[in-house]
Amino acid sequence: MTTDNSVQVSVLGLGAMGSALAGTLVKAGYATTVWNRSPGKADDLVAQGARTVATAGDAVRAGGLVITCLLDHASVREVLDPLSGELAGRTLINVTTTSPAQSRELAAWAGQAQVTYLDGGIMAVPSMIGRPGASILYSGSADAYQQHKPLLDLWGTSSYFGEDAGLASLYDLALLAGMYVMFAGFMHGAAMVAPAGVTAREFAAMATPWLSAMTGSFQGFAAVVDGGDYTVEGQQSLEFSQLGDLLAASSDQGISTEVVAMVQRLIQRQIDAGHGEEGFARIIESIRRPG
Amino acid sequence: MTTDNSVQVSVLGLGAMGSALAGTLVKAGYATTVWNRSPGKADDLVAQGARTVATAGDAVRAGGLVITCLLDHASVREVLDPLSGELAGRTLINVTTTSPAQSRELAAWAGQAQVTYLDGGIMAVPSMIGRPGASILYSGSADAYQQHKPLLDLWGTSSYFGEDAGLASLYDLALLAGMYVMFAGFMHGAAMVAPAGVTAREFAAMATPWLSAMTGSFQGFAAVVDGGDYTVEGQQSLEFSQLGDLLAASSDQGISTEVVAMVQRLIQRQIDAGHGEEGFARIIESIRRPG
Repeated sequence: MTTDNSVQVSVLGLGAMGSALAGTLVKAGYATTVWNRSPGKADDLVAQGARTVATAGDAVRAGGLVITCLLDHASVREVLDPLSGELAGRTLINVTTTSPAQSRELAAWAGQAQVTYLDGGIMAVPSMIGRPGASILYSGSADAYQQHKPLLDLWGTSSYFGEDAGLASLYDLALLAGMYVMFAGFMHGAAMVAPAGVTAREFAAMATPWLSAMTGSFQGFAAVVDGGDYTVEGQQSLEFSQLGDLLAASSDQGISTEVVAMVQRLIQRQIDAGHGEEGFARIIESIRRPG
Repeated sequence: MTTDNSVQVSVLGLGAMGSALAGTLVKAGYATTVWNRSPGKADDLVAQGARTVATAGDAVRAGGLVITCLLDHASVREVLDPLSGELAGRTLINVTTTSPAQSRELAAWAGQAQVTYLDGGIMAVPSMIGRPGASILYSGSADAYQQHKPLLDLWGTSSYFGEDAGLASLYDLALLAGMYVMFAGFMHGAAMVAPAGVTAREFAAMATPWLSAMTGSFQGFAAVVDGGDYTVEGQQSLEFSQLGDLLAASSDQGISTEVVAMVQRLIQRQIDAGHGEEGFARIIESIRRPG
């Protein structure tokens, strides 16, 4: 591991995530200044070798690279707005969870203030930072990403998506959407088998390898979507995927059908539009065009 | 690999799946008789060493173990009803896709006809049969499962769920429900990033490892569900998971919000019932009790 010890780093915001990010930098030998609005959060980091300061302004002045990991977009504006003068000429990496529109707004604000801006979306819980499996998405300044990649790579696998500062947030939200929907699908399956005396843990033992294996289908669907021709050979057709059996079995078990009915509606709209013999990947057209 | 050459096997139904199942048995050295309603489907299998016969009755009489892989439940009844006398004393393994209720009905029919009945649900496409990743679920006669496990294991990983013949179908449908819902979640994510110029393939490259990793959350959710106490420490709360950001970002991208709104409704019903500070796993209660 090589670190650029000439980089003075400041981390603003020491919640569980900010503390994990700062701790990784301290451990790697970076000169790290930390700040948190409410006191006491810096104690562990100071014991490991970080330096703490009294104000956000002190933290900004101490670092050539400023990292913000605050509660939300409003907190970032509240802390940084009064410090635009001090931030000028510095690099700001903001990993606070924000919407794409908020990330773009911060990038525009940073541009006016002569601040180099990189936006980050963290796909991990704090305990995963610095360990395999942590993934962090970036967009905004390509220069900042390239220059600080050795530091960013300490936290997890880094991916860069482009100069549009909103892209990392957009990707982040798109991946979270996939996750929440998958969780609902798992819960539906667990609810289906429960009346037959199957525990959720027994179902999870089957569903975990099954759904993990089925993520292997995404690239095939994606190739069809990108190709734009849903009649390509070798696909399961929409008519074959009507999900009537799934809804009937869910009703028979006395549970809600709404989770599976959502997928059925996406399928049915394409069948109704005359595409029943085309491939399942075509359901994306139901999502692209609000019904 | 050890095979019990004293078992004479008959496979009824030579669609893509039935042919794959029969082909695996022939290759493993089982004396295999095959039959299909429409002719010509047996030619490849005969070239490999199978024997073919003219009628379903001939096939049943040739095998101590009869395997049916037909179009649907009605086809199974249509082919086997006239043969209940010939089937008496034999073992029937039916891997035709059926609902839990249909599997139980076939098991009852088999019981009356003195036929030992095992029901199978195949979690694989034909090309996966006999290769790693194929999973086949069984329920019904435990004796039949134990006796023929060496043969069943040739097709893929075998799992047995109990004497209730409907359990394998129920598990099968529950796992398929999880899969279809996950696919819809993937498509929603791909639709979210598309307006920013991200291809579905680029999104799949991120979503495949991400969702595969997130299946690792199922056991934790399941432990909470089985425990029945949704206030256990260390969970993400329902209030934290309101998904408002996801819906707003989806609307901003001009796409349908219905996929994510389905999850939000499950969450909101629990919040409305006063459980907002409890864990995300509680959404299963929204599914268990139709709204």
